[in-house]
This record gives sequence, structure tokens and C-alpha cells, in this order.
Amino acid sequence: MKNNLLQNINSPSDLRLIDEAQLPEVARELRNFIIDIIAVKEGHLGASLGVVELTIALHYVFDTPNDLLVWDVGHQAYGHKILTGRRDDFHTNRQLGGISGFPKRDESIYDTFGVGHSSTSISAALGMAIASNLKGDFEKQHIAVIGDASIASGMAFEGLNHAGVTDANLLVILNDNAIGIDPSVGALKKYLTAVKEGKNPRQNNMIKSLNFDYSGPIDGHDIFAVIKELKRLQKIKGPKFLHVITTKGKGLKQAEEDQVKYHAPGKFDASTGEIYIKAEENLPPKYQDVFGLTVLDLARKNEKIIGITPAMPSGSSLNFMMKEFPKRAFDVGIAEQHAVTLAAGMATQGMIVYCNIYSTFLQRAYDQVIHDVALQNLPVIFCLDRAGLVGEDGATHHGVFDIAYLRCIPNMIIYAPRNEIELQNILYTAQLGLKHPIAIRYPRGRGVIPDWQKNYQGIYQAIEIGKSDCLKQGSKIAILSNGTICNNVTLAIAKTKNPEQLAHYDFPFVKPLDENQLHSIFKKFKTIITIEDGTVIGGFGSAILEFASTNHYSSQITTLGIPDEFIQHGNVAELQQYCKIDVKSLEILFSNF
Amino acid sequence: MKNNLLQNINSPSDLRLIDEAQLPEVARELRNFIIDIIAVKEGHLGASLGVVELTIALHYVFDTPNDLLVWDVGHQAYGHKILTGRRDDFHTNRQLGGISGFPKRDESIYDTFGVGHSSTSISAALGMAIASNLKGDFEKQHIAVIGDASIASGMAFEGLNHAGVTDANLLVILNDNAIGIDPSVGALKKYLTAVKEGKNPRQNNMIKSLNFDYSGPIDGHDIFAVIKELKRLQKIKGPKFLHVITTKGKGLKQAEEDQVKYHAPGKFDASTGEIYIKAEENLPPKYQDVFGLTVLDLARKNEKIIGITPAMPSGSSLNFMMKEFPKRAFDVGIAEQHAVTLAAGMATQGMIVYCNIYSTFLQRAYDQVIHDVALQNLPVIFCLDRAGLVGEDGATHHGVFDIAYLRCIPNMIIYAPRNEIELQNILYTAQLGLKHPIAIRYPRGRGVIPDWQKNYQGIYQAIEIGKSDCLKQGSKIAILSNGTICNNVTLAIAKTKNPEQLAHYDFPFVKPLDENQLHSIFKKFKTIITIEDGTVIGGFGSAILEFASTNHYSSQITTLGIPDEFIQHGNVAELQQYCKIDVKSLEILFSNF
Repeated sequence: MKNNLLQNINSPSDLRLIDEAQLPEVARELRNFIIDIIAVKEGHLGASLGVVELTIALHYVFDTPNDLLVWDVGHQAYGHKILTGRRDDFHTNRQLGGISGFPKRDESIYDTFGVGHSSTSISAALGMAIASNLKGDFEKQHIAVIGDASIASGMAFEGLNHAGVTDANLLVILNDNAIGIDPSVGALKKYLTAVKEGKNPRQNNMIKSLNFDYSGPIDGHDIFAVIKELKRLQKIKGPKFLHVITTKGKGLKQAEEDQVKYHAPGKFDASTGEIYIKAEENLPPKYQDVFGLTVLDLARKNEKIIGITPAMPSGSSLNFMMKEFPKRAFDVGIAEQHAVTLAAGMATQGMIVYCNIYSTFLQRAYDQVIHDVALQNLPVIFCLDRAGLVGEDGATHHGVFDIAYLRCIPNMIIYAPRNEIELQNILYTAQLGLKHPIAIRYPRGRGVIPDWQKNYQGIYQAIEIGKSDCLKQGSKIAILSNGTICNNVTLAIAKTKNPEQLAHYDFPFVKPLDENQLHSIFKKFKTIITIEDGTVIGGFGSAILEFASTNHYSSQITTLGIPDEFIQHGNVAELQQYCKIDVKSLEILFSNF
Repeated sequence: MKNNLLQNINSPSDLRLIDEAQLPEVARELRNFIIDIIAVKEGHLGASLGVVELTIALHYVFDTPNDLLVWDVGHQAYGHKILTGRRDDFHTNRQLGGISGFPKRDESIYDTFGVGHSSTSISAALGMAIASNLKGDFEKQHIAVIGDASIASGMAFEGLNHAGVTDANLLVILNDNAIGIDPSVGALKKYLTAVKEGKNPRQNNMIKSLNFDYSGPIDGHDIFAVIKELKRLQKIKGPKFLHVITTKGKGLKQAEEDQVKYHAPGKFDASTGEIYIKAEENLPPKYQDVFGLTVLDLARKNEKIIGITPAMPSGSSLNFMMKEFPKRAFDVGIAEQHAVTLAAGMATQGMIVYCNIYSTFLQRAYDQVIHDVALQNLPVIFCLDRAGLVGEDGATHHGVFDIAYLRCIPNMIIYAPRNEIELQNILYTAQLGLKHPIAIRYPRGRGVIPDWQKNYQGIYQAIEIGKSDCLKQGSKIAILSNGTICNNVTLAIAKTKNPEQLAHYDFPFVKPLDENQLHSIFKKFKTIITIEDGTVIGGFGSAILEFASTNHYSSQITTLGIPDEFIQHGNVAELQQYCKIDVKSLEILFSNF
């Protein structure tokens, strides 16, 4: 009886054979299917529950995969995956070798555009629509489904601004649930809320002003209403915009009530919705919490301190500071470019700004880092969360390029702590009057020091800029590590047969390099190994090669890190193993040298 | 008599002593002063002429430098510079050691924020305004002056979206002249035009929808009207928006009539406005025209070819194709992020997209290159115009980071031609069915082959991906160059005393490297010199160091290129000399090895 209908849907063609009256039952089954699997396997829950009806309606009305459907971000695409031939693989979601947590072109013809980062869908779908026009196909439909948090990002506006002056057969569907991962912010959100509540006397004009055929808002959970409206829009040519109101987490009471927590709740009880609490005692802290609590502590003592996050208050743990200092800690929405230049503007006025951006998302503000911060040598403090391999989010989210793309920028200080204490100390140091901008990169997840907070918080030690540490002396080979991968090196050395041959240096500063220490190392060792949680091309290892070349050293250098390919999803241990920077691989390497 | 008033204005305080009735005369003098100097010294003319009245009014009404004034892009800031103490230095504009063509914090306390790239002003001024609030200064004014082309860029929208929900003392002035460097495009432009013409029944709501206090449009050349409105707005708290209509090139007839040409006209007759035509016969072509004419020629033969430029049709020479194939060549406005993802969307449908973006502006779309193009391995063709040192535009515009920031991206092909023929051939090769995205970087300005078009256009030769060339055999030292700096090497070698000792290899592909050739080189030569028109950190030279390290070669490698600092303005020859990659410096280096 369970999944009576869903079990026979192996593609949208099967879905289209079902009588419209039965679609609410399909929705019920699909929703339960998602809940049952995510409860056990983990993943992004709330977004997909919110678009169950919309997903069914889209595949029911449109001729996918001939019509081209682009999901923005992709957190909400689980229903889409299940209806497009991946129902039986869905339990492998986000696992190594399993299906991706995001739409991905390699995975299915129904995934027309790979996503992960936000606000790309309008541009991508418009590109497809223009291509169809040029090929003489004026019937094909091109649909971008985008959330209200994502549409507020500048890139989405650029797409709308262009689409509005084309005759492209483009339908933009605004999935308006008033929340991204955290609640949406900004003037556009305020405007959309007024529209929803019927309060806005200038109703809907903003989108119409951009030359779109606007319709809505409609209830996104009324599947019949959605189908009716999609069928109507299907016949209209040119750029169209449908405003759909949905509830994130729809159908699971707790997920509707605590939408932030249930964005990606971890394991939970599928019947009650209750999240299984992991025993946290004696676990080391998350780096995120070390950041959030330390910045809060520093902000209490220094009123010039400001915090900025583009739409990640809970993910970055800036929410601690936002709660206590709402006027000094800002969630600016999905607006990395603005976040960085806002920080630069504040820095010109003497503010000490901690601008927290995930490493992979700082790629969105690369020009602003160069042009607005580094060129003016403004001492903005970039906190690059989720640097290195991030695990299950996969190729779109690994923060592995930052060392390479930041290292070529003049004036930048680049630092990666090896543990929570060093992260705390560099955050402290950064507000003592830096003369340059600094990027502090640290990984997703937990550190290595369980009693961090009890013993250390509030006892800060200033870090000398550019200083490295010798963690272990050795006779034959020098291992130079940057960042938390240091801990793999320490463990690996301990397991080798001749640990006395292995020296280990922590080089938290990729820039400036500790040249004094390097001269000593190169004079002593003929064999040097560098290791980092970033691309070997252009990264920390390359910095060491450049140093050696400039100074005419001839020691043999081996550089370890992320190879020249996009790394897929899996847990961090598995991915480290793939990149041969896990403890076991290092142990073997060190033993065979 | 000439500059009777202007000659006594050494700061805005002096300006404020002048009777309001005399300000039109100040405007006349200021306009003539700009024309007289730019006619001889060259520079950006049209934008500054358009804001003469606005500039005077701003400094007359507001208490600069206490009130903070941010000019977007900065092309229009000549009047501002002249009124703020730089009148007598203005003739050094854009010259080595002279004042910068853009506002620059180092240069004057009146330049509150360094600019060059567009659309940063709202974010920067908002950051300043929030800082003032936090410092308890609620009187200070913060003004961003932004053009209608720049405000259509996503970053500006992000700034407005945030500002609208703050109580920041921010005044955004839209300098609406319907043109950037080329005429403005997009739905927002269409909307603003309707507002200007009084045709829009939903007048002004778009900005009001973002929670701004909107006023205008007003005539930006009516100095009394502008002053009156600024004085009114001065007393209003919170985010305000003033829509000002101006004419680019105002006051010089030809500049008003041909606004594209007079954006930066080169030398001209100050009294008649006539541009001095340079004798172009027997000059080698501009790389821009080689790009534009070749893509046009290829597009005639291959209907899948599409061209995209973000707001640089004339600068990039894509306008040749736009004229002949208006449906296949797109100016998307200042929207680099959108341009790249639009290209990716088109590429999924089998289109062959030449996406032409200045190297320095591709920094704006770095994430889209990684996430939307390279990760999906879509064969988009990035044409990176103005790569390397660009000359007089200076630090904000040098395209020197691209090799470093692209090299770490998996799947990318990176190519720099040594001359016009190679550029033509790689453009041809790129549409033969590449399996990867490619970045083709070439400099601003002219090549080296005068009869390029006569002899070569239309006779294409496919280039083997990854192939290098030995241009000259030698016995002792191997010189490996990438891109047009090759020509400096050739000239320098010819001037040395022992040219027979110097081998010269052209490595147009930074990625993939020609490993076969490199193995031969490293086996033969103990001394290797790399040279590139990009940052030595992480660039082509680093790629060679990485190759040597991976393959255990011990040859001594010297890497030449742009050092680790922001390079200022000056002509390209002067800047190459500064970086020691000019012919003379290379000759000395080669002779002394």
C-alpha cells in the first residue's frame, strides 16, 4: 500500500499517466519517501519538502527532459531526483559513489544544469532559451525555480535585467518561503512579504518593471492551482514570472516550526520528527563555534569590532554575536560581493571587520577582495569557513582553491590554524592593529581539543605574523604542513617505524612565509614534503617551490594536497584518502621515503 | 580672465565662499579646464564633462571631506580632483608618477574610496554610513554617485537591497545619462528611460520598493535645481535616492553627439573638438580588432557561434559581430557573473560561445568560471582582453592575476598567443570542438604584424592543444616565454653578445603544459628562465617549477613577471621597465647569466 503510486513512477512520463485527482496522493507518498530516507541517511530536508507539489506539477505539466528545468541551488531537488529515475538510488544520496545532493549533469538528463551555489538558474535558463530560439525551436520551455533568498543576490538581478529585454521563452518561478538556510533579509524580502500579505499598494510592479509577465502570488501547496497556472503560462511567449508561496519543511510539523534546524537536521525519527541528539560531551568544538564564541568575546571588549555574514548566521556561528550585538553583526543575505565591499567601507572608517564567508563562496567576491580590500590595503579580516574538503556537499562546495587564488594578491596575509587554540589566537591577533588584510581559513567540523572552551577561551596569545613552528625535530625529512591537516601528519609520523627521521613544521602562514625558518630547513634537509588541504597547483607547496627557486636551493620537494580535478562527494575521511592526505596514506608515504 | 574663479579654488572651502549666482561661471571654467588638458594629455573626457554641475553642487552643499563622497567607477571624477586640490597636478593625469585617472585613497583625503571597477560605491558608502552610526555620528553624510550602467550590475543591487533595511545616512545619486562606455542596456535601463520620459505609470516605484526615499528625475545641468534638491535631502535621515539626468560629454558638441568615441577620445583640438587622427597605415592591428574580425569571420561560417560581452562592445571589438549578427552577439551590460553563466547555459545546448571579458573584470565572475563552466567541463571560450599590464588605467585595471587564478581550476585550458596570427588561429581552433573550457589571454593594444589582415585573415591553422614551439635553438640557457612578452625576449636575445647560447621557447599553453618539450628542455639545460606578463606568484613560472619538482629535475629556474605588489599607472613600456621585463632589462639579464 505504501508508495503505491510512487513505486511505479520511474520517469516523468509515468507521472503524466496518473490522473490529476491522484496527484495529492503522489505528493503525500513523495513527501513521506523523502522524510523516511533523510531521517536515516541525513541530508537537506526542509527545502525539498516545501516544493513537493511544485515539483510534481512541473514534471506533470512540462515535457521534461525536452523542456529544460533548472533548480537554483539544488537543496530542493530531492523530489525531482526521485521522480526522474533515481528513486531507488536515493538512499545513496551524498555518499561516496552515490548520487549527488545537488542536480548534476553527469547524473541525469533531467539535471540540465549543475548547481550548488545560489542564483545561477536565471542566467543558465536564459542561455538555454536563447540557444533554443537560435535553433528555431520556439516551443521549448525553459524554467528556472529560484528561492526568495537566492533571487536577492546580485547575479539573479543581472539575469532578470537581461531576460526582460529578450523574447526568450523563459519562466522564472519564485519559490517564496521567506527563508534560505536562515531567514531571508533585505529590502526585496520586505517588499515580497508586503506583496504576499496584500499590503503593497504598488503590488508586483517591481518584477513588471523589469518587463516580465508577472503572475501570482499563488499557494504552492495547492497542486491543482499550481498546475492550472503552469498550463496557462505554458502558452505565453517571452519572459514570465510566477510567484509561488510555499512553506519550507511542509508536512513535517517540527520542520515547519523550526525551519533553520530542519534545513539539514541530521538523523531524526521519521514518525515523530524528533532529532536524535548526539552525545556531545567530550567532543572537540566545531571550528565554527570557536569562531563565533571568540568573536563574540572579542566584540565585548572592543567596540570597533563588526561581524558580517552573507546569509550564513547559523552555519558560521556569527549568530552568537548577532544576538548580543545586533547593531554590530550583519547578515547581508546571499551577497558576497556586497559583504566584502561593505567591510572595506567600514574599514576605511577604522572599524575592525570580521567578514565570514565560506571559502567556496568567497569565489563570488574575488574581485572585491582584490580591488576594494587588498589594493587599498584595508585590514579586513576574512574568515574563510569550510576551507578544504567539506565532505558530503561535494564538488561545488569544497573550499580548495582559496590558497591559490589569494596567494597571488599583493598585501594579503594568508593563515590557516592547526587547531582551535590557534584559530582563537589569530582571531585575537587580527584585532590588535593589523597593517594588511588577512584571510583565516579553517575547515568545516570539529577540532581536536575537547576542553577548548573550559581551559582556553579568554586567554589569548598574540601570534607573530609570518611565524612558523617546529612541532617535531627529525634527522632526514622535513614535513611542512599548513592548517589542520597538521593533525594527520602528527598521527602519521607517530605510526611510522622511524619517526626520529621525520621533522614536522607547522606553517600556518602561507603568506608571508617564515623565510628564516625555511632557510634553516633547506640548509638542513635534502628531502622536503609539503602538505595542505587545498590544490597543489598554485598552493602552499608552490609557495615553497618558489622560495626554493628564488634562493637557489636544490632540495627535493614533494607537494601533497588536492590534485588537479574536481573532488566529488563523500565523507571527509574518504575524500582525504582519495587525495592521499589521510593518516594511512601519509604513514605509507613517510615510511617509504 | 580665463579661470578667474577656478584659479582661486584650492579646496572645496574656497568653492563654498563663492556666491551661488557665480557657480555657472565656475562650471564653465571647470569644463574648459578639463577640455583643455584632456585635449592634450588624453584621458576619460565625456563622463567628467557630464557631471561638472553635479560635482560643483556636491562640494558646495556638502561638508567634504567630513561628509564622505564616493564616485562609482571614477571616470567622472576629474572635476572632483580639480576642485579638491589637484588642479595644478591635473596635467600629470594617468602618467607615471602623476595623479591617477581614478579616485585613490593614497592621493587625497577627498578620495574616500578607491575605484576603477564599477558598482562598488553603494556598498562602500553604506559601510561608511553604518560605521558613522556606530560611532554616534548621525550628522555625517555619505554619498554614492553611480551611473545608470553601473547601477544595473548585480553588486549595486545587493548594496541597495541591504541599504533599504538600514537607517544609514546614505544618499545614492543616480547619474543617468543612458550610457556607460557604450550605451546602457537591459530592462532597468528601459524602465529608467520610461521614468525620464514621464511615460511610466508606475513611476519610480522600483526604487521606492527597495525602501528608499526617491526623488527626481531632475536636470543635472541646472546647477541651482541640483543645489536646492541636495540641500533638501541633506536634512532627511535614512537611505535616500536622487535621480539626476545628465548628458555625457556636456558642453563639447562632438562629445555630446558621439558619446562612445568621446568617452576617451585621445588627443583632440580643444577649440573645435576634432579628434586628431593618427596615421594608421602600416601599423600592426589592435589585438581587439583581430579578435573582433576573426570572430565575425568564423561566425559567418559557423552558425553555432555566439559572442558575449559585458558592456564592452567597442572596447572588445565584438561590435563587428553585433552589427552583422545582432541575434547572436550580446552586450549584457556590466554583468560579468551573468555573462559567464549565460555562456554556460548556451554551451549546454551545443552553442560555441566566445565570452569576451577583460582580464581584470573576469575577477568578477571567478566563481561562475569554476562552478558553472569548469566543473561541468563546458567548452566555453573565454577571451581575456587587456591581459597583463594595461598602462595608464593603472592598478585597478592591470590583468595580471588571471594565470594564477585560472591555473588552479581543473579542466581549464589556458592559452596566450605570441602574436596576432596565433590569436587568430586559436580563435579558429576553439570552435573545432574543444573538449574543455579555454581562456585565451591577450593584451591591450597593437600586435607586431602590420599586414596581418591582408595576408592572413581567413587562412586558419588549427593549433594542437598543449603544444609549445622552439623559436630559437641555443646552447646554454633556455628561455620559456608565455604570450606576447615573447616579442621582448626575441628582441633582447638579438641584442645580447652571445645569442647562440640562448634558446627561446614559446609556451602559449600554461595549461596543459607541453611536457614532452619540457622533458627535452630540462634534460638539456641547467639554466632556465621563464617570463610572463602576469604575477610571478602562482603563474606560468610556478607551473614550470611544479613540473620540475614533480619530475625531479634540478635545473636552476628563474621566474620573471609581475612582482608581488600592485603596479601603478604609466605607459606599458615604463611599467615593463619597472617590472624588469622590458627589452633592455632582459638584454642585461641574458647577458649576465
